[in-house]
Amino acid sequence: MNLLLKLKDNPLTPPQILAAGFFAIISLGTILLKLPISTNAPLSWLDAAFTATSAVTVTGLIVVDTGTAFTLFGQTVLMILIQIGGLGFLTFAVMSIIFLGKKIRLKNRLLMQEALNQNTMGGIVRLIRVLFYFAISMELIAALILSFRWVPEYGLGFGLFTSLFHAVSAFNNAGFSLWADSLSQYIGDPIVNIVITLLFVSGGIGFTVIYELMARKKFRALTLHTKVMLVGTLIINVVAVVLFFILEVNNPNTLGNLSIGEQLWGSYFQGLTPRTAGFNSLDYSQMNDGTLLFTILLMFIGAGSASTASGIKVTTFIIIVLAVTAYLRGHSEVFAFRSRIETDVILRSLSIIVVGLFFVFFSIFLLTITEDLPTLQVVFEGFSAFGTVGLSTGITDQLSSLGRPIIMLLMFIGRVGPLTIAFSIARKTPPRISYPKGEIFTG
Amino acid sequence: MNLLLKLKDNPLTPPQILAAGFFAIISLGTILLKLPISTNAPLSWLDAAFTATSAVTVTGLIVVDTGTAFTLFGQTVLMILIQIGGLGFLTFAVMSIIFLGKKIRLKNRLLMQEALNQNTMGGIVRLIRVLFYFAISMELIAALILSFRWVPEYGLGFGLFTSLFHAVSAFNNAGFSLWADSLSQYIGDPIVNIVITLLFVSGGIGFTVIYELMARKKFRALTLHTKVMLVGTLIINVVAVVLFFILEVNNPNTLGNLSIGEQLWGSYFQGLTPRTAGFNSLDYSQMNDGTLLFTILLMFIGAGSASTASGIKVTTFIIIVLAVTAYLRGHSEVFAFRSRIETDVILRSLSIIVVGLFFVFFSIFLLTITEDLPTLQVVFEGFSAFGTVGLSTGITDQLSSLGRPIIMLLMFIGRVGPLTIAFSIARKTPPRISYPKGEIFTG
Ligand SMILES: [K+]
Ligand SMILES: [K+]
Repeated sequence: MNLLLKLKDNPLTPPQILAAGFFAIISLGTILLKLPISTNAPLSWLDAAFTATSAVTVTGLIVVDTGTAFTLFGQTVLMILIQIGGLGFLTFAVMSIIFLGKKIRLKNRLLMQEALNQNTMGGIVRLIRVLFYFAISMELIAALILSFRWVPEYGLGFGLFTSLFHAVSAFNNAGFSLWADSLSQYIGDPIVNIVITLLFVSGGIGFTVIYELMARKKFRALTLHTKVMLVGTLIINVVAVVLFFILEVNNPNTLGNLSIGEQLWGSYFQGLTPRTAGFNSLDYSQMNDGTLLFTILLMFIGAGSASTASGIKVTTFIIIVLAVTAYLRGHSEVFAFRSRIETDVILRSLSIIVVGLFFVFFSIFLLTITEDLPTLQVVFEGFSAFGTVGLSTGITDQLSSLGRPIIMLLMFIGRVGPLTIAFSIARKTPPRISYPKGEIFTG
Repeated sequence: MNLLLKLKDNPLTPPQILAAGFFAIISLGTILLKLPISTNAPLSWLDAAFTATSAVTVTGLIVVDTGTAFTLFGQTVLMILIQIGGLGFLTFAVMSIIFLGKKIRLKNRLLMQEALNQNTMGGIVRLIRVLFYFAISMELIAALILSFRWVPEYGLGFGLFTSLFHAVSAFNNAGFSLWADSLSQYIGDPIVNIVITLLFVSGGIGFTVIYELMARKKFRALTLHTKVMLVGTLIINVVAVVLFFILEVNNPNTLGNLSIGEQLWGSYFQGLTPRTAGFNSLDYSQMNDGTLLFTILLMFIGAGSASTASGIKVTTFIIIVLAVTAYLRGHSEVFAFRSRIETDVILRSLSIIVVGLFFVFFSIFLLTITEDLPTLQVVFEGFSAFGTVGLSTGITDQLSSLGRPIIMLLMFIGRVGPLTIAFSIARKTPPRISYPKGEIFTG
């Protein structure tokens, strides 16, 4: 923490560089998307900025239809913005260690270095190379497989482009699609379902997890972080898929009138996508309110640290559940997989959730004043933006010119991270002298 | 915590006695309200049970209009149920120290004894006497003042009865009124506004706070608990009043068409009532969605520990805010008023909030399935029940026969306390051997 205080003397902290970088790319993207060559009909500056923000923050909320509003050039710009936003963020943490040296918080650096087991400059450069190879090869292989599905259907030109676009969009958890109804046409298609979910899950689980798995360690030898991510992701996904099926199987506007195969694929896809992928193969405007509430929780949780996904993160959620369970069972320490979770980590998790909820609820509160839309849909939209998920009940293009910047800001905060924003706002004060314990009742 | 484990060998723990007591009184109340002498028209068992639960848990949600559905006998039964529920809960903690001796958790007993400065049996008996004198005299004095307002208007009989009924209902934070529109007729009446709010604030701030204030200590000599309650209550109330005014002043169905005096009194009353009083002088079904969202937060916070109010409590809320603020500022310890707040208290506060939110959201989730009502109104109703507030957008009597028991259970959980319920459900296991620290990323 003392290191963090020293950073105040330096011109830019890593989080500020990250925020400035996002801002610069969004600005450039806005200008490019505003060019007449990018669109089939003139686009307002606000809508260009909204689309660029949505792409760079890998959200996927849209105010114009990606497939019809943009030209091939515009769509290529979008794809590149998504790649820079997703992959750029992923590499940023590792890059900052190289370029900023001691400037990064010692604690985080050690954590990351331990997980990735890289202590030398050369090792870190190799690591970034691995990261890039992994991302690009995942995207290219996936695009190749998808092209077997889409080239016969759409011809060579659009077939190849749409395969690459959706592969890039999926790996970066961006949720942009060239079809107005996202992947709804392919609800029962095994290839599309498996390839797209494999992409967004491996992009979203976190690079340190992937890196450890590539080292083919045994489960017991994995770090606590990787164990929690693997088991947590599995449990949350299974619960989400089963619950989605139960809640929607009798809804004639979603699963109700489909074949059993489509019902199962639909539940599988909609169970996995809220944790920040953002594609959909069913229409969220037709879902039950209970499903929307449950999806809001999933969107808030999000996926893994150091990944192309956002949200508070699976580990943060599980740490709070473990802390509360331990308290209720009368344990004074919190354990997971034979490892102790320190109080500092619990307080950090609590802070992420509280600060995140504050940003989301404050934005939603403002939106209830500026917008004349059903509140549940506004709440859904707010959580979707914060988690950079991109799912919507369809109100995004109805947002007013006041509502759009609020959602843009929320996507930005969600991607940079609520705690990063809060740290840069909070006035650092030197720790006070210690005071005696005070008595206070709660609950 | 070891003490708590030992309790398993004993037949009933204090929380179980509390829950059993509530259950017994609610059952008795149900039978009494079901008697033909209690009602002007036959009442179903479910509605009698709902009304009794609402009265004993001092909530105030109603499925039949109190003023017209019940006879004078029935209304008197309700008033007594409210008094037993509110005052009984208040004295329970102190009583259990006397009757159960060492059985209560040592930590809580010491906390309470320190705050009340009573270490002997005789002292505790005197304390309960003070508590009863305080409650009854507050109610009687208030009833007397209110009767100056209502006897001229309604005559001696009903005038006196309605004054006493509303005084008991207000001190116990029950929110039951003999008028279908609650206190809407008196929106601009200074006497009604001041007397009713003074009653529910002094009933809701917590008896240890009152007791310390009666001892006329200087502010610096007060316990941390009392300081936090006083300052926290003041800040939350001022913010709530100002925000209510801003949000509703242009709403023609609430403040919009009123005189400036009524606008100010209306904002004052509606600013204070969500923190579990439950009376209203404006119609919540006509309010903006932003106001409803803000009111939901206030209802969840509630008022003080060891009081006639529920919710997670002001101290719990403030401890979490302080813990997050301290974390963001890089402090390793949490302070308030020159006192340190221990990690155990922070974990307890976190647990109260998480467990409380779990109960509320699980119930709301079930209600979205069982009920065909607007989700924001269902969410509002759920938080109102959990906080035993009693405010409603008017959907209570539209709840199905599945929805009513869910709300009844939520009122019960809210009053007994989420953590008490969770402790009795949680399987206590002996603390595990300590494990080494594990590395885990969050956010
Ligand atoms: K997304
Ligand atoms: K109440």
